[in-house]
Amino acid sequence: MGMFIVLEGIDGAGKSTQARLLAQWFEKRGYEVVLTKEPTDTPFGKLIRKLVLIGGKEGIIDGARISHEAEALLFAADRAEHVHKLIKPSLEQGKVVISDRYFYSSLAYQWARGLDLEWLVDLNRFAVRPDLVILLDLPVRESMNRINGRKIKTEFDKIAELQRRVRENYLKLAKRFEEIKIINALASLEDIHNDIVALVQHEILGEY
Amino acid sequence: MGMFIVLEGIDGAGKSTQARLLAQWFEKRGYEVVLTKEPTDTPFGKLIRKLVLIGGKEGIIDGARISHEAEALLFAADRAEHVHKLIKPSLEQGKVVISDRYFYSSLAYQWARGLDLEWLVDLNRFAVRPDLVILLDLPVRESMNRINGRKIKTEFDKIAELQRRVRENYLKLAKRFEEIKIINALASLEDIHNDIVALVQHEILGEY
Repeated sequence: MGMFIVLEGIDGAGKSTQARLLAQWFEKRGYEVVLTKEPTDTPFGKLIRKLVLIGGKEGIIDGARISHEAEALLFAADRAEHVHKLIKPSLEQGKVVISDRYFYSSLAYQWARGLDLEWLVDLNRFAVRPDLVILLDLPVRESMNRINGRKIKTEFDKIAELQRRVRENYLKLAKRFEEIKIINALASLEDIHNDIVALVQHEILGEY
Repeated sequence: MGMFIVLEGIDGAGKSTQARLLAQWFEKRGYEVVLTKEPTDTPFGKLIRKLVLIGGKEGIIDGARISHEAEALLFAADRAEHVHKLIKPSLEQGKVVISDRYFYSSLAYQWARGLDLEWLVDLNRFAVRPDLVILLDLPVRESMNRINGRKIKTEFDKIAELQRRVRENYLKLAKRFEEIKIINALASLEDIHNDIVALVQHEILGEY
């Protein structure tokens, strides 16, 4: 069996960059790595992008066009495909799977929209639990500065308020799910990468 | 508040015909009727048709292309839109809503595919409960004769086996959900219609 590592955090926390750096670190050590993300590129992921995501690649804001329940179920459907078609088979082949977002995103975001957390946990029950979840924690003010650079200029306050609730939710989830480890995402790219590598070595590889 | 009536049953049981006849009956009595169905015509329903339904409009057979979990979640997402955008608002306007299939279909079919019934019930928890669910019960041999007429000729045995399990599941669900009433779908169109009207008058209108 391989290793399954997830990066989580609010928009602008540096998940995709750190996922890439971590993938390179594993590859240098001779591991076969699958670098993936949610939403995926399946037909479900495409529908999510069309219906839910507004204002850029990672700008998940209030998806007025569809109901919150439908949104949660669609993300979960996308995840089911992700788990069955990519994550499980890759782990069975002994690969290292690194995912930029996973079901913790659904919990943090959709809970922030007012859905019942227990319902969200229930409907994601099929999802394989990762060996390690790295939560890149960032103050919302900093997140908003970074997102702003990605040209999301509308509905600034609304997004900031959602981000605040999502950040709080992530921190609450870290108390419930022991696989979640928090890393300060205000540090430099290199420092964060080193923190992540140290966590991986300590929590999974048992090297230190 | 309006009235919410659902028709359920295996393929070929006559649901859409009877839904239409029942709608006409209500309209003649001066009710405003919304005749609807699942999967819907929303983007979710379209994706369902593309990914899941093979061999004709109602030929739900083993959807090899996507995982059973993803399928169940996609049907539920479609239903969430159905409930929030059409069913609830129509009921609040005092209309009679008649739906050809609802969450009982998901339970009966996806349970037959091996998914956990309690998980399916959980993920459909948002769905408004109907006032009456009419289960058109039909022996599978008769269903297969009728479906055959709709030109589904491949994988006959596989479909028949699935239909058998689905029929059994519907009958089990009728014991769990008291709103489900069973009607023999082997009778003539007119007799079945009369049985349905009698049920509606007895169970909802309190006329007899």
